[in-house]
Amino acid sequence: MKAHAERPPRSRWRQRLYRVIFGVDTRAGKAFDVVLIWAIILSVIVVMLDSVEAIQSRFHPILYALEWLFTALFTAEYVVRLIVARHPARYAVSVFGLIDLLAVLPTYLSLFLGGAQSLLVIRALRLLRIFRVFKLTQYLSEADVLRIALLASRRKIAVFVLFVLSVAVIMGALMYLIEGERAGFTSIPRAMYWAIVTMTTVGYGDIAPRTAVGQGFASALMILGYGIIAVPTGIVSVELAQATRKDASPGRACAGCGKDGHDADAVYCKYCGEAL
Amino acid sequence: MKAHAERPPRSRWRQRLYRVIFGVDTRAGKAFDVVLIWAIILSVIVVMLDSVEAIQSRFHPILYALEWLFTALFTAEYVVRLIVARHPARYAVSVFGLIDLLAVLPTYLSLFLGGAQSLLVIRALRLLRIFRVFKLTQYLSEADVLRIALLASRRKIAVFVLFVLSVAVIMGALMYLIEGERAGFTSIPRAMYWAIVTMTTVGYGDIAPRTAVGQGFASALMILGYGIIAVPTGIVSVELAQATRKDASPGRACAGCGKDGHDADAVYCKYCGEAL
Amino acid sequence: MKAHAERPPRSRWRQRLYRVIFGVDTRAGKAFDVVLIWAIILSVIVVMLDSVEAIQSRFHPILYALEWLFTALFTAEYVVRLIVARHPARYAVSVFGLIDLLAVLPTYLSLFLGGAQSLLVIRALRLLRIFRVFKLTQYLSEADVLRIALLASRRKIAVFVLFVLSVAVIMGALMYLIEGERAGFTSIPRAMYWAIVTMTTVGYGDIAPRTAVGQGFASALMILGYGIIAVPTGIVSVELAQATRKDASPGRACAGCGKDGHDADAVYCKYCGEAL
Amino acid sequence: MKAHAERPPRSRWRQRLYRVIFGVDTRAGKAFDVVLIWAIILSVIVVMLDSVEAIQSRFHPILYALEWLFTALFTAEYVVRLIVARHPARYAVSVFGLIDLLAVLPTYLSLFLGGAQSLLVIRALRLLRIFRVFKLTQYLSEADVLRIALLASRRKIAVFVLFVLSVAVIMGALMYLIEGERAGFTSIPRAMYWAIVTMTTVGYGDIAPRTAVGQGFASALMILGYGIIAVPTGIVSVELAQATRKDASPGRACAGCGKDGHDADAVYCKYCGEAL
Repeated sequence: MKAHAERPPRSRWRQRLYRVIFGVDTRAGKAFDVVLIWAIILSVIVVMLDSVEAIQSRFHPILYALEWLFTALFTAEYVVRLIVARHPARYAVSVFGLIDLLAVLPTYLSLFLGGAQSLLVIRALRLLRIFRVFKLTQYLSEADVLRIALLASRRKIAVFVLFVLSVAVIMGALMYLIEGERAGFTSIPRAMYWAIVTMTTVGYGDIAPRTAVGQGFASALMILGYGIIAVPTGIVSVELAQATRKDASPGRACAGCGKDGHDADAVYCKYCGEAL
Repeated sequence: MKAHAERPPRSRWRQRLYRVIFGVDTRAGKAFDVVLIWAIILSVIVVMLDSVEAIQSRFHPILYALEWLFTALFTAEYVVRLIVARHPARYAVSVFGLIDLLAVLPTYLSLFLGGAQSLLVIRALRLLRIFRVFKLTQYLSEADVLRIALLASRRKIAVFVLFVLSVAVIMGALMYLIEGERAGFTSIPRAMYWAIVTMTTVGYGDIAPRTAVGQGFASALMILGYGIIAVPTGIVSVELAQATRKDASPGRACAGCGKDGHDADAVYCKYCGEAL
Repeated sequence: MKAHAERPPRSRWRQRLYRVIFGVDTRAGKAFDVVLIWAIILSVIVVMLDSVEAIQSRFHPILYALEWLFTALFTAEYVVRLIVARHPARYAVSVFGLIDLLAVLPTYLSLFLGGAQSLLVIRALRLLRIFRVFKLTQYLSEADVLRIALLASRRKIAVFVLFVLSVAVIMGALMYLIEGERAGFTSIPRAMYWAIVTMTTVGYGDIAPRTAVGQGFASALMILGYGIIAVPTGIVSVELAQATRKDASPGRACAGCGKDGHDADAVYCKYCGEAL
Repeated sequence: MKAHAERPPRSRWRQRLYRVIFGVDTRAGKAFDVVLIWAIILSVIVVMLDSVEAIQSRFHPILYALEWLFTALFTAEYVVRLIVARHPARYAVSVFGLIDLLAVLPTYLSLFLGGAQSLLVIRALRLLRIFRVFKLTQYLSEADVLRIALLASRRKIAVFVLFVLSVAVIMGALMYLIEGERAGFTSIPRAMYWAIVTMTTVGYGDIAPRTAVGQGFASALMILGYGIIAVPTGIVSVELAQATRKDASPGRACAGCGKDGHDADAVYCKYCGEAL
C-alpha cells in the first residue's frame, strides 16, 4: 500500500484487472479463482489421461488439442498477471510466479524434447491457490500451526534423518557382505536402498534376505526401525501440542497476577478473577 | 417427547412394539436387540461363506435359502419399524434407517443383477447397533471423544490429504519419466498408485523401481512418507488430549454463569470472573 | 501371611524349599531363578533348532535327548512347586501355574500326536519370570503404567477394532466384486485378508489389485488406513501421559492450599510453599 | 584444565596442533574440521562406488588408489591425534578414538581378507563430527533431549521388545505347524522372521500364509502389531514432552537451595519451600 502511494497512479483498467486476478474479496475475483482452479484440475487430468496407453491410442488428438488450449490460456493468464502486478519483477520471482511459469514451460519444451509433457503435472502445485478461495484465513492458520511445529522441530528432524542415513550405510554394507549377489544385494547403494525400504516399513520384497544370518540382521533392523518410527511422531506431537497452546494465547498475560496460558475464549483470568 | 404430547395418542400395541424394537431399557427390548445382532452376524457370515468356491459348490442351496430367510426377516423388521416409529419419514432418512434399507435391497437386486448379493455385507454396518445394547452410554461417550477429536482436526487433515495427493501426482509423473514401462510404471495414474502405496508404507512390491535413479527418488519419498506419518498421528494425539481434558472436568460448572470446561487449576471462572 | 498364621505349621524342609523356589529375596532363591531362566532359554532354543531341517538331519538324537531332559526337569520342578506351595490348587489354576503345566505337556502329547513338540515354544512364556529376578519392582511398575494405560483405553480400542473389521468386510466385498478371480481376490474372506494386510500397511503383495478401479479404491483405503493408524497411537499416548502423571502424585494434595499434581520428588508445595 | 596445570607444559607446536585438530573455536580449527568432513564423505562414496560392478569394471584402479590415499590421510590424522592429545590413552579408548581407528583398519585387513574393504563404510560414523562444527551447542542440546527421552523410557522399551520377541516365538511356532513347508515356513526361526516382518508392518511377501486358517492368524497378528506400534510411539511422545518441559525452564534456579527443574507455574521451590 505504501508503494502504491509513492508510485504514479495506475490506469483504471489495470487496477480493476488486478482486483479480479489477484484479489479474492470481490465477487468477480472469487469467480475468476474458482474458474481457474477447475481449469487447473482439468489440465492435470488431461496430462494424466494422455499417459494411459489405452486412452492415448484413441483420444490423443483431442487430448493434444486440449493441452495446447490450456497452455495458451495459462500463458495468457501469466502475461496478464505480469502486466497488472504492482511489482512485475517481484511477482516473477515469487513462489506463485515461478509455479505459474513452470506450469506452461513443459508444453513448449516438448516441441524440442520428447516426454517433457509429463512435467506438466507440476500444474498440480497451482492448486495451492485453492486455499486462497474457500475459508482462506481458517485454513491458513491451520497450515501455520503445522509449519510452526515443523520449523520448531527441524533440528531434531535433521539429527533423525542423519541417523537414519548412517544406519542405512552401515547396514547396507553389512548385508552386501552377508547376502551377496544371490538375493539381489548386488552393490552397497542397492543394499542401502533395501535398508531404507526396510527401516521405513515399506517392504517391497523385491530385495529380501535369504540366508539365516541375513534374516537375523534384517529382523534386528526392523525392530530398530519400529522404534525409530516413534521418534519423529513423538517430536511432531510435542511441537504440535506447543504450537497449538501458543496459538491459543499469544501473549495474553493477566494484568492482575501476570500469569498467562489462558484459553482463547477466556474473558477473566482463571487464577485471580481479573478481567483480561 | 414434546412431539408426543402434541400428537394424538397412539394405539397401545404400537407403543409396546416401539418400546421393544427401538428401546433398550426394557427386558424385552434388550432381548430383541441381542437376537437381532446375532441374526446380523450370522447373515454376514452366510454371505461370506457363499463367496468361497469350495463351500459354495457343496452348500449353495442351504446358504441361498438362509440368505432369503434373513432377507425376509430383515424386510419384515424394516416394515414394522416404519409402522411403529413416531416419525416414519424421519426414521426412513436417518442413518440407521438407510442402513436398514440397504441391508435388504441387494438380495432383491440380485434377481436382476448377478453378483449384487456380495453387497449384502453392507449388513455389517447394522452391527453399529451393538453399542446401543452393552453399556450404551459409556461406549458412546468414548466414540464421542474420538468424534470430537476428528472433527476438531478436520481442517488440518484436509490440508494433509491435499498435500499427500499433490506429492503423489508430482512423484508419479517423475517416476513415469524415469522408470518407464519396464518396471511397471505404465502410466501416470499407475505411477500415482505406486507413490501412494510407497508413501503410506504399504509397499506391495507389484510395482518397484529398478534403475539406480528411480531407487534414489523412491528412497527420498520413503523417508518423506516416514516423516509425514508423524503429522496425522501428532494432530490426533493433541486433539484427543484436549478432548479428553475437557471431558475430564464435566462437573465444574461456574455458579455465576453456568458454563463449564474449566481447566483443572482454574480458581476463577474464565467467562465471568466468579470464584469457582 | 494371614493364611499362614491360621494353618498348622508346615514342615521345615517345605518352608525352606518354598523360599528357594518361589522366593527371590534369599541368595539360594535368586540363584535358583537364574538357573531356571537359562534352562528355559536353552530348552526353547533346542525346540527351534530341531525344526531346522539341516540341523535336525544331523543332530536329531542329541536334540531329542535334550528335549526329554528339559521336560523331565520342568516336570519335576512343577511337581515340587505343587507340593511346597501354600495353596497347591490356587497355584495350579494361577497364570504362572498353567504356563508351567503347558510348558511340559506337549512333549508327552508328541508320543501320540506328531508335530505337537513345536508347541513346546510355549515355554517362552515362562521367561516372564525374568522380571521377578532383576530389579523386580522397577520393571513391574513400568509394566503397570503400560497396563493401566491399556486398560483405561480398552473401550476406545474396542470401538477402533470393530471399526477396522467393519471397513475390512465392506472393502473386501467391494474388491471381490471389482477385481474378481484374476488378481487373487477369490472369495470375500480372502479379500478381507487383503483389506487387513493393506489397512495395517503390512502390504505383502501376494494379493494386489490390477484394474484401474481396484487400484483407485485401494489407494483410498491406504490413505484411510494411514489416518486410522493415528488413532490408536493418539489414544495410547494420551492414556500413557495420564498414567505417568497419576503415577507421579498419587493423592499428594497440599495440606495448606489443597492443590495436588506435585512431582514425586517435591518436598514443599509449589503453589503456597507449605511442607508436604 | 586441572590436568593441564599439574602436568609439565607441553611444547608450543603440540598445543597449536591440538587447537587446530581437536578445537573448533579458532578459524584454522574450523577449517580443518570442514575439510575433514568432506574427506570422510568422499571416502565413503568411493567405497560405495567400488561395490557397483558397472563402475568397478571401468574405474577400479582409480578408486583403489583413492581408497589407499584416504586411508593414508586418516592414518596420519589418527597418529597426530594420538601425539598431540593431552591424554593419548584416554583418546584411544574414547568413542571418537575407536571410530577413528576402525575407519582405517579395514583397508589394512583387506590385504589379508577379501571383502573387508566394504567395512570401510564404518567411516560414515565419523560424520558424527559434523555436529561439532555447525551450530554445535544447539544441535547437541536437541540430541540431548532425544537421549534423555530414550534413557527415561529404556525400561518400558525393554518390556516392549521382550513382549514382541515372545509373540514372535509363539506365533512363529503356530504358523510353522499350520502352514508348513509349502508357503515358505520351513523352520521355526524362519517363521519367527516372518512374524517380525509382519508385526513391524514391513511385509516383504517373500513368505506369506496361503491357507485360510493361516491367513486368519496372520490378520490377528497384524491388528495386534497395529496396536503394538502405538506403544513405543506413545512412550517416546510422553518422555519427549517431559524432557522438553524440563528443558524449557533452565534458568529458574531457586535462590534458597540452587536447584532448578521447577514447573512453569511453580511459585515456591518444591525442594526447600523458598519463594521463587
